[in-house]
Amino acid sequence: MEDKIVRPSEQQQPIRCKAAVCRKAGEALIIEEIFVAPPMPHEARIRIICTSLCYSDITFWKMQEPPAIFPRILGHEAIGVVESVGEEVTEVTKGDIVVPIFMPDCEECIDCKSKKSNLCSKFPFNISPRMLRHDSSRFTDLNGEIINHFMCISSFSEYTVVDIANLLKIDSSIPPNRACLLSCGVSTGVGAAWRTANVEPGSTVAVFGLGCIGLAVAEGARLCGATRIIGVDINPQKFDIGKKFGLTDFVHAGECENKSVSQVIMEMTGGGADYCFECVGMASLVHEAYASCRKGWGKTIVVGVDKPGSKLSFNSSDVLFQGKTLMGSLFGGLKPKTDVPILLKRYIDKELNLDDFVTHEVEFKDINKAFDLLIKGQSLRCLIWMHK
Amino acid sequence: MEDKIVRPSEQQQPIRCKAAVCRKAGEALIIEEIFVAPPMPHEARIRIICTSLCYSDITFWKMQEPPAIFPRILGHEAIGVVESVGEEVTEVTKGDIVVPIFMPDCEECIDCKSKKSNLCSKFPFNISPRMLRHDSSRFTDLNGEIINHFMCISSFSEYTVVDIANLLKIDSSIPPNRACLLSCGVSTGVGAAWRTANVEPGSTVAVFGLGCIGLAVAEGARLCGATRIIGVDINPQKFDIGKKFGLTDFVHAGECENKSVSQVIMEMTGGGADYCFECVGMASLVHEAYASCRKGWGKTIVVGVDKPGSKLSFNSSDVLFQGKTLMGSLFGGLKPKTDVPILLKRYIDKELNLDDFVTHEVEFKDINKAFDLLIKGQSLRCLIWMHK
Ligand SMILES: [Zn+2]
Ligand SMILES: [Zn+2]
Ligand SMILES: [Zn+2]
Ligand SMILES: [Zn+2]
Repeated sequence: MEDKIVRPSEQQQPIRCKAAVCRKAGEALIIEEIFVAPPMPHEARIRIICTSLCYSDITFWKMQEPPAIFPRILGHEAIGVVESVGEEVTEVTKGDIVVPIFMPDCEECIDCKSKKSNLCSKFPFNISPRMLRHDSSRFTDLNGEIINHFMCISSFSEYTVVDIANLLKIDSSIPPNRACLLSCGVSTGVGAAWRTANVEPGSTVAVFGLGCIGLAVAEGARLCGATRIIGVDINPQKFDIGKKFGLTDFVHAGECENKSVSQVIMEMTGGGADYCFECVGMASLVHEAYASCRKGWGKTIVVGVDKPGSKLSFNSSDVLFQGKTLMGSLFGGLKPKTDVPILLKRYIDKELNLDDFVTHEVEFKDINKAFDLLIKGQSLRCLIWMHK
Repeated sequence: MEDKIVRPSEQQQPIRCKAAVCRKAGEALIIEEIFVAPPMPHEARIRIICTSLCYSDITFWKMQEPPAIFPRILGHEAIGVVESVGEEVTEVTKGDIVVPIFMPDCEECIDCKSKKSNLCSKFPFNISPRMLRHDSSRFTDLNGEIINHFMCISSFSEYTVVDIANLLKIDSSIPPNRACLLSCGVSTGVGAAWRTANVEPGSTVAVFGLGCIGLAVAEGARLCGATRIIGVDINPQKFDIGKKFGLTDFVHAGECENKSVSQVIMEMTGGGADYCFECVGMASLVHEAYASCRKGWGKTIVVGVDKPGSKLSFNSSDVLFQGKTLMGSLFGGLKPKTDVPILLKRYIDKELNLDDFVTHEVEFKDINKAFDLLIKGQSLRCLIWMHK
């Protein structure tokens, strides 16, 4: 079915709506009118209910060189309603509430069928500026110029088109400004503790970097029954915020009196944490995390995204003689279509704390304020409502 | 008890016997008479039945600079009989058959009590040239000069002294020239597949380097139920030998027609092996192994000992986006006193192939022949009998 000639359904028309377009690296987004083409086969057109700003949006907004590309509609953490579907779509229908997830889950390939992997091999994760399955854009501006997609989602628009491999249908009773958070950041952190590291009850965890993802790691570790959760950050105010997510201890990085953070953690824990999570995206912090974890069984989990080309370097003898494990965690190792519903249920059951991640809410016209807040480190998640 | 003044039992005397002493880096061992002092508390004096040559002996025999030290009695893969015990020893008694193991297992510390670690924290593994608990030597030559120990074992001697943390008592009915192999090399390889990687039935394994340890990894993977076991070596004759240990496929490194080994393995396996083991001790091979393992769930296990100071370097983005795991495996992750008896039982039950590892047997006086054979790659294990 994939190989036949594909075209939009003839009865569907482009939608004219507002979008926040990034026309130049680092410049304020411009709210302008655009056309959103009808969905192609295996795609759905979505009316965004609300979206939130994740640090990856900032990264690609600031980025000057490829893979940065402009004009582009950023945004990938969101919730919406299906407006229409393309041919071949049986998974969702008009009116369904959906959470778009940048990690494709085709449900067919060996990876998606395996319990061990969340890296779809039919649609390998990439940061292409076009649609996943049909290598083209659904966005044009009023002059007919193509506008690029972002992470297969582009949620900073009243309407967007998303492949069904990137869509999770959820129960319409779940508050949208909470479900939205599981679209990327909170899932990534909670999943890193739960699925990638599989934190054991009673264990000790260290989290390097207490942004939204680091705090979500703490929350995930708390849900797994960790008894000691040590946060590491250069901002000591993060400790109070972190307590809401299970943080029990704090290491003020940069203020350790001639000791490295790993020395401090080794002393605090009598030999190292059982699990260390790097949530910033700095090679030097990965090395500190590795040095902070317990010989014999410690696991270091890389969650933060570093600059392209950045290297991690370990002494061969440390790797061999210390019995530690190094793992990477993309989207927290979560399988979008099976694991995110479990997290939603844990929110409904009042186990998973989503409420405290939402520090700000703004209207769509004020989207640039969300950027300011996150860049200044004042927000965890700023919700952006398309229509109040 | 550890802090009181310790001394040899008064009724015990030094034993005068033959040892193969390494007096200078890279020079033939000299069989000479030495004195072996009585055991101190928590030590036992052992009459070696047979010993075998492991590559670590060669490494420290060739090594010119510290931590190399001379004169020294090498050898750490062995089996023996307890001749006498020091004070405080309750674990073994005169006449017991024992396998010395260079990895201490004190059975008391948090690591030894944990199922997750084999790195004793009471006696951290080190390559000190003296005894484990009492920082001194039990060997002197006929001139009264101290001779150094090696890896707490020094089995190239008719008698040696070993700490009880390094001694496993075994059933006397097990053939000594088989049990001896579990003292180091074969245990290391089998354990890496079994305990460190926990190879799943039906999986695909790649083994880089088909010396004794690499072949033991293959054997371990076979025992775990791996269905495809790919050997990688520069010597194609290793494939026939490897078939005895479960090898199903072979990649002739250096003869891959413009392809890297990892490219070949990716093609053979349709995306990578589930487990890759580096058994040589070369950073570049660890990188190939990492590149050869399956995205999403592949594990790379470092078994080979590289030169001190050698670095392993990975792209941060590969670690994050590929969902692979990197682990080190010392003594195969085996807990000496609980796991080696399980391997002995699997040998008795005719599941574990130990026989084919013994390619040569020599008398003690011909110990230098064992060095020649291993250096030339002609032997897997050469047994050295103290008394035929
Ligand atoms: Zn994100
Ligand atoms: Zn898939
Ligand atoms: Zn111990
Ligand atoms: Zn050895």
